[in-house]
Amino acid sequence: MSGEKFKAISAADFFYKNKEIAGFDNPVRATYTIIRELVENALDACEQYSILPDVRVKLIDEGNSIYRLRVEDNGIGVPYEQVPYAFAQILFGSKYTLRQSRGIFGLGGKMAVLYGQITAHSTVKVTSSQGGYEKYTYELNINIQENKPIIKRKEVLPNPSRWRGTIVQFSFEGDYVRAKPKVVEYFKQTSIILPYATILFIDPDGVIYRFDRITEKMPKPAEEVKPHPHGIDLEMVQRMINSTRSSTLVDFLANNFHRVGVATALNFLKSIKFKPDMNPKSLTPKELLTLVNKMKEYDGFQPPDAQCLSSVGPELLRAGIMREFKPEFVAVTQRGAAAYGGHPFIVEAAIAYGGEIPITPPDELTVFRYANKIPLLYDLHSDVTMKVIKKINWKRYKLDPATMPLAFFVHICATKVPYKTVGKEYIADRPEVEYEIEWALKTCARQLRMHLAKKEKAAFVQRRLSVFEKYLPMISQFAAELAGSPNPPHHEKVLKRLQIHAKEIEQRSVVQVN
Amino acid sequence: MSGEKFKAISAADFFYKNKEIAGFDNPVRATYTIIRELVENALDACEQYSILPDVRVKLIDEGNSIYRLRVEDNGIGVPYEQVPYAFAQILFGSKYTLRQSRGIFGLGGKMAVLYGQITAHSTVKVTSSQGGYEKYTYELNINIQENKPIIKRKEVLPNPSRWRGTIVQFSFEGDYVRAKPKVVEYFKQTSIILPYATILFIDPDGVIYRFDRITEKMPKPAEEVKPHPHGIDLEMVQRMINSTRSSTLVDFLANNFHRVGVATALNFLKSIKFKPDMNPKSLTPKELLTLVNKMKEYDGFQPPDAQCLSSVGPELLRAGIMREFKPEFVAVTQRGAAAYGGHPFIVEAAIAYGGEIPITPPDELTVFRYANKIPLLYDLHSDVTMKVIKKINWKRYKLDPATMPLAFFVHICATKVPYKTVGKEYIADRPEVEYEIEWALKTCARQLRMHLAKKEKAAFVQRRLSVFEKYLPMISQFAAELAGSPNPPHHEKVLKRLQIHAKEIEQRSVVQVN
Repeated sequence: MSGEKFKAISAADFFYKNKEIAGFDNPVRATYTIIRELVENALDACEQYSILPDVRVKLIDEGNSIYRLRVEDNGIGVPYEQVPYAFAQILFGSKYTLRQSRGIFGLGGKMAVLYGQITAHSTVKVTSSQGGYEKYTYELNINIQENKPIIKRKEVLPNPSRWRGTIVQFSFEGDYVRAKPKVVEYFKQTSIILPYATILFIDPDGVIYRFDRITEKMPKPAEEVKPHPHGIDLEMVQRMINSTRSSTLVDFLANNFHRVGVATALNFLKSIKFKPDMNPKSLTPKELLTLVNKMKEYDGFQPPDAQCLSSVGPELLRAGIMREFKPEFVAVTQRGAAAYGGHPFIVEAAIAYGGEIPITPPDELTVFRYANKIPLLYDLHSDVTMKVIKKINWKRYKLDPATMPLAFFVHICATKVPYKTVGKEYIADRPEVEYEIEWALKTCARQLRMHLAKKEKAAFVQRRLSVFEKYLPMISQFAAELAGSPNPPHHEKVLKRLQIHAKEIEQRSVVQVN
Repeated sequence: MSGEKFKAISAADFFYKNKEIAGFDNPVRATYTIIRELVENALDACEQYSILPDVRVKLIDEGNSIYRLRVEDNGIGVPYEQVPYAFAQILFGSKYTLRQSRGIFGLGGKMAVLYGQITAHSTVKVTSSQGGYEKYTYELNINIQENKPIIKRKEVLPNPSRWRGTIVQFSFEGDYVRAKPKVVEYFKQTSIILPYATILFIDPDGVIYRFDRITEKMPKPAEEVKPHPHGIDLEMVQRMINSTRSSTLVDFLANNFHRVGVATALNFLKSIKFKPDMNPKSLTPKELLTLVNKMKEYDGFQPPDAQCLSSVGPELLRAGIMREFKPEFVAVTQRGAAAYGGHPFIVEAAIAYGGEIPITPPDELTVFRYANKIPLLYDLHSDVTMKVIKKINWKRYKLDPATMPLAFFVHICATKVPYKTVGKEYIADRPEVEYEIEWALKTCARQLRMHLAKKEKAAFVQRRLSVFEKYLPMISQFAAELAGSPNPPHHEKVLKRLQIHAKEIEQRSVVQVN
C-alpha cells in the first residue's frame, strides 16, 4: 500500500487548473470575461485618479477561433519596473487595499493573459507610460508552474507627445459570435453607469459601438480606508501590531482603525479593562484574542463612514439612463451609508418608465445590477437584487412589472462587495444589503407612483377641459337665447382659466424630481 | 498625481482575504464547511486505499461561540515529513492529479485550519501514523503572509498497537445551533451514498448520530489517468514535452495520453502530416500549437474510459436508500461512461417511492445531489440536476412529484467535476452531463411506472378474486339447486387457481428489479 503523492503548486497553477471558477468555463464565456476584465482595469486606472475615461477596445478575428484584443486607456499608466508583475504574475497587483474598486481579486487581467497563453500561445504586449518623456513596451508570458513573469522583449521609446495610459494586446481562443449579445450588453450597461466615460468598441465584423460622454462631471474618486473595528480579525490585528510604531495600546487603536480616535479608544479600553498605556507588542495571545473579540462587539464605535466610497449619484445615474432608454420618467434615489461586517456600502437605485423600455414577461424583467460600477450580467436569479424585486408588493405602488414598461437599476458600492464567486457574477444576500436595496426600490416606486398619479390627473383634467371647450360655447349660446339676450355671456374667460390650469397640471406631471 | 501601489500576496493571503469564495461566509456557513471539508479528507484517505472507512467526528462547545472539532479516520495516514505542508500550506496536497476524489482544490482542509487560526487563535493538532512503530503529533499554525507552516510543537510517540490513521483537532468560531440542520443533513446524505462506511458524529449537545456500515462491499478505488487528448491545452503539452524522455513524437503521444496507443498515434500524425519520428522537443511554437489544436479536434481517438472512476453502483446505492427511507420501491440505474472536454464521467441515479419519504410542495422536492460521493446541500436551484427535474415531463411516466412521495438521487462521478465555485456548491450545466442525468432519471421513472402499474394490476386482480371468493360458492350452490343435483360443482379448484394467480401477481409487484 503506497502513500499519497503530495506536491505544492503555484497560485498561477491553481487558477490555471481551475479556470472555470474565475469565469473561464469555455470559449464563449472566456470571450466575455476577458473583455470585461481588461475594460474594468482600464476604467479603474482612470477613475481612481480623476481622469475622464477614454477607453478604446478592438477585437480582431484572426481565424481558427483565435481573436486578438487591444484595449487602450488614458489612465495613470503602470510604472516601468512593475509591468511584468502587474500583467504576468498572479496575486500581484494594486487592488489589495480597502478601497472601492472594480477589481478586488487582482486576478482577472492576469487570468485573461494566462488564457491567451494556453489557448493561442500568445504573449501579452503591454505599452504604457505615466506621461513622462518615455514610454515602454513589454512582451510577456507567464511561467505558470512558478508563477513568475517571463520577459520576451522589452523596449523603451521616446514619448514626445507625453502620452499617458496603457495599451494591452494579446490573442486568445474565443467565440465572439456566441458571446456577442453579452459583450454588447456589457458595454451598453457600462455606459449607463458611466455617462462621463467615452467608450469605443470595434467588433470583429467592423461594427463600431460608440458611447460618448455626455458630461464631464465625475464622481469623486474612492479613498482608501483603515479597517473598521467591526470588520477585523486576529490575523489582521496581529499584522498591524507587528508593523506598528505605536508604543501604547491607545495610540495603536487611534492610529490604525477607521472611526477610532483617542477618546473612543480610551472609552473602549476602559470598558474591557485593558491598560491604555500597555505596549501592543506585549499582549499575550489570550489578551490579543480578547481584544479582537471585544472590538468586534463593542457598540461604542461610530459606524463606517461612506465618505470613502465613490457612488455615481442620482444626477449621473439619471443622465445615463436617459441617454440609453429615453424613458418618460426616471425615479432615482441614493440611500445613506450603511455597513455590513465593518465594510461601508451605499445603495443607489432607479426605476425608469416608458420610452424605449420594453414590456417583458415576469421572469425576464429588465433589471440592471451594478457593483462598484461593474454591470453584473450572469446569475440574476441567484442575486440579492432579484430576491428583493420578487419580494416587493408592487401593487401597493400601483405598478405591475409584468404589464408596464419598467426597468430597474440597482448599484451597490462598497470597499468590499460580497461576491459569491471569483467570477463576480452575483452578490450574496447579506441582510444589511438586502434591506438597503429594498428601501431604495420602494422609494423609487413611490416617486413613480406619484408621477403616474399626476399623469392620470392631467389626463382627467384634459378630458374635462375638452368637454368644456365643446359645450361651454353652446351653453352660453343657449343661455343667451333662453334669456332673450342678444349677447351670450363671456365664456372665454372661464375656458382660458381652465386651459391654464390643465397646462400647469400637465407640465407638473412631466417635470422630473431631481 | 501618485501612481498605484503594487504588492504581491501569497496564495494563503488571497484565500484569507476572500474566505467567502471557499464557503466561509459567516460562522454558520463556516461550521458546516469546516466539518464537511475534514470529513471529506478523512473519507478520501480511506477509500482511495480500499480501507473500509471508520470516521469519528466530535464537536465540543467551548463557550463564546468557539467550538473544538476532532475528526479521526482509519485512513492511509500522512507521512511524517509531509504533515506540516499538508495541513498548513495552501495549494499543497495530494489532490492535483487526474483522479476522482472528493477534494480537487487541495484547499478545504487548510482553509478550515486557517479559519480556526484567525477566529479562535487556534493551532491545529494533527496526530497521524501510517501503521508503523511510531505515530507523531504536530501542532501547527499557518504563516499566512508567506504561506508557510509554523511548527509550534512536534513529537514522535511509540505506536505499539500499529494504529493507522489521522486525527485532526482545532478550534474555530462557529454557530452550531444555526448550522445544525445542514450539518446533520450532511451526515445523513453522506451515509446514504456510503453504506460501507461507519460514521459517528457527537454534537455539542452530546447527541450521537451513528451510521453503521451495512455492507463490507466497497466500490473499487478510483485510478489516476493520463489526460485525454480532447481535454488538453498548450501549457499541459508543453510541460509534458519538457519532462518526457521519448525521443519521437509517436512515442511521446503513445506514452502520455489516455486512449492513445502507437497505432492511433501513427494514424493521427499521418492525418495532420507530422513526421512520427521527429523529436517532440524540436517542435516550433507554431507546430506545437497546431499539434495541440489538432489533437483536441481529431475524432479518431477513443472516448475517455470510465474504468478509472469509482462509482457507487446500483446495489450499494439502493442499500443506502433502503436504510434511510425504507421506501416501498427504489428504481436505480447507472449510465454508461460519458465524457466532457476529455474528462470521463458516470451518472448514477435513483428514484425512491413511498416508505418514509414525505410528500413535498413542488418547489421543495426531495432531491439528493452527489458529486464524487459528496452531498451537495446548497444552491439546488442553480444546479443542473434541478434543471433536468424541472424539464422532464413526469406525467408521461404517470408520476407527479407534487402529490406522490418521491425522492430523487443523482450522483455524478468524474475525474474533474465541473463545479461552478470553490465552495463546491453546485455543478455547471455542461450539455453532456445534463443529457446523462436526464436519461438516468427517465430510466428510473420508467422502472417506477412499471412497478406502480404492476401494483395497480395486483390490486385489480385482488379485487376480482374477492368477488369470486364471495359469489363462486353461491353460484355453484344455485346451479346445483337449479339442476336439482344434490352435489354442487367443485368451484374450489377454480378458486384455488385464481388465488395462486393473484398471489403471483402480487409478489411480482413487490419484487425489486436489480
